[in-house]
Amino acid sequence: MELHILDHRLRVTSITKSGLAQFTHALIKLIFLRRRTRCKFFSMTETPENFTVVLDEEGFKELEASSQLQAEDSVWLPLNVLSDGNASASLGSQPAGVTKVAESVIAPLARQHVSVFMLSTYQTDFILVREKDLPVVVSTLEEEFNIFREVGGESLLVRGHDVANGLHKNGKEAVPACTLHPVLIPQNRFCVMSLDPDTLPSIATTLIDVLFYSSSAKEDETSSSSADLERINFFSFSLIDGYVSLVMDTLAQRQFPADLLFTSSSGELWRMVRIGGQPLGFDECGIVAQISQPLADCDISAYYISTFSFDHALVPEEDISRVSDLLHKQRTDPTTG
Amino acid sequence: MELHILDHRLRVTSITKSGLAQFTHALIKLIFLRRRTRCKFFSMTETPENFTVVLDEEGFKELEASSQLQAEDSVWLPLNVLSDGNASASLGSQPAGVTKVAESVIAPLARQHVSVFMLSTYQTDFILVREKDLPVVVSTLEEEFNIFREVGGESLLVRGHDVANGLHKNGKEAVPACTLHPVLIPQNRFCVMSLDPDTLPSIATTLIDVLFYSSSAKEDETSSSSADLERINFFSFSLIDGYVSLVMDTLAQRQFPADLLFTSSSGELWRMVRIGGQPLGFDECGIVAQISQPLADCDISAYYISTFSFDHALVPEEDISRVSDLLHKQRTDPTTG
Repeated sequence: MELHILDHRLRVTSITKSGLAQFTHALIKLIFLRRRTRCKFFSMTETPENFTVVLDEEGFKELEASSQLQAEDSVWLPLNVLSDGNASASLGSQPAGVTKVAESVIAPLARQHVSVFMLSTYQTDFILVREKDLPVVVSTLEEEFNIFREVGGESLLVRGHDVANGLHKNGKEAVPACTLHPVLIPQNRFCVMSLDPDTLPSIATTLIDVLFYSSSAKEDETSSSSADLERINFFSFSLIDGYVSLVMDTLAQRQFPADLLFTSSSGELWRMVRIGGQPLGFDECGIVAQISQPLADCDISAYYISTFSFDHALVPEEDISRVSDLLHKQRTDPTTG
Repeated sequence: MELHILDHRLRVTSITKSGLAQFTHALIKLIFLRRRTRCKFFSMTETPENFTVVLDEEGFKELEASSQLQAEDSVWLPLNVLSDGNASASLGSQPAGVTKVAESVIAPLARQHVSVFMLSTYQTDFILVREKDLPVVVSTLEEEFNIFREVGGESLLVRGHDVANGLHKNGKEAVPACTLHPVLIPQNRFCVMSLDPDTLPSIATTLIDVLFYSSSAKEDETSSSSADLERINFFSFSLIDGYVSLVMDTLAQRQFPADLLFTSSSGELWRMVRIGGQPLGFDECGIVAQISQPLADCDISAYYISTFSFDHALVPEEDISRVSDLLHKQRTDPTTG
């Protein structure tokens, strides 16, 4: 298998609900006016707390400094696992998404105390790691993978000693007793969709409406604390290397013209597991592993979307009760996790 | 003939070029998301200096106070002349637009020292007057017109004594020696277009691009002072009672899909006369009359668009040299004006 370190240097940022208006000009340019920007990696996810915007440094330049914008300090690099030369997420007969990389990437990195930020899209799964962790990532994963670094359109084979600079592993081999975060399973059902990027203008006003005008800052601030969430306000849009991916619930989906968006299989619906009772931060390791490992054990496919404050796994609707039992068991009897 | 005082209470505002980004969220809502706003009268015109936004009080509420936003203090009411029950601007065989109302409305109001702010659209010509001037307007125009006030969908006949409140005429009957403002005739050619409001979403990204991203604040600030303007940066969009009107030059027109926008006659092009060497302000009267009277004398149709700083007349391409001669003569020998 191949692991590609993609040629994007990313920043992970968050915009407050009430600050969105002041960033609308920049964000609309990044989403719709491709010829006006050199940004090639853009992702924006609304959660009840805020908007998480992950974008490359060209895109980040468009965001003006403001008290409404928080940016995690690091530069993050997206990793992508290819098997037989194909990206990993085409969720077919065998479990895919984050489940597929759980044992080969997520678990080993967690053991090495490398924080990961996951971003599943319709097309593939991006595993973001901090640039400064790259030597550890390479030395940890090079036994399992041929690792390539994409630079200016070319893929260069990378070996541990190329990036090591004396750093090898984080040195703490033992997995510490990890905090098991509470999970929340909202009632709404999600679809993971795409569309021909050339038809993006056709859904512009709907997408603008949903992304920039649907949430009321006042309404949503409290909903995240309620334990039994009826419906979570979650919408994710990404435009990465020209590919569009949309994750939305069925309520939002109804606003879009049915003939333009497509999903991988007919009417496939997903349920969400939201991880974290308190904002997770970026330094704790093993959060993705905590969810992806049991899913891998049970062969359950999952999309996984990290945001600035919480993590979100999407599992097939028909598997949600099994997943719910599994996570509940893990929390009452941690030895099974 | 009928004069209708329309049921809109308008504000005339200006947004700086550098302040546009912070108003993008509000403006996009007013233009594209009709179900999210109760604004029924919206017009936005870019000139080299700034963006003039004329909108009703519902729309004005959406604009947050800012040093980048200037609002003229008054409430303005739009007047509309109907002949045989039709709005005035269908530019056919006989001169229309501001030319048609030059002698019946513009000149008498100028003599009464009533400031007017003109807004021609594809569909009609709005003559904006200050609400406080309404008694004078009615008493001045009631000899010529049946005057109706539209209130909640009904048209009520208005008589001078209904609105007079003791005010009759401004009292200064003699026309003062009016400053003849310099005029500028840029080289670009304009079209006045419309589109089915239901197809507005189809041109959303293009319109957003042109309105919010085309001008560089730095480039344009100086161009207004140059006397021989090659091309003026002028673009006007209005959405009034559900009708869309667009005024743009042929360069901007090329960015729009040719099959959605339509113009009244095949490929009709217009040239601009820009009035004012210095910003005109809102208190001087007779500026519109200064241009519309000679055009009326020569039976030349014209659209007329006032903005926060300058006025703009659009005359048929084939008439521009005649108009230019006329205005030049007026400036060298004022007795002919």
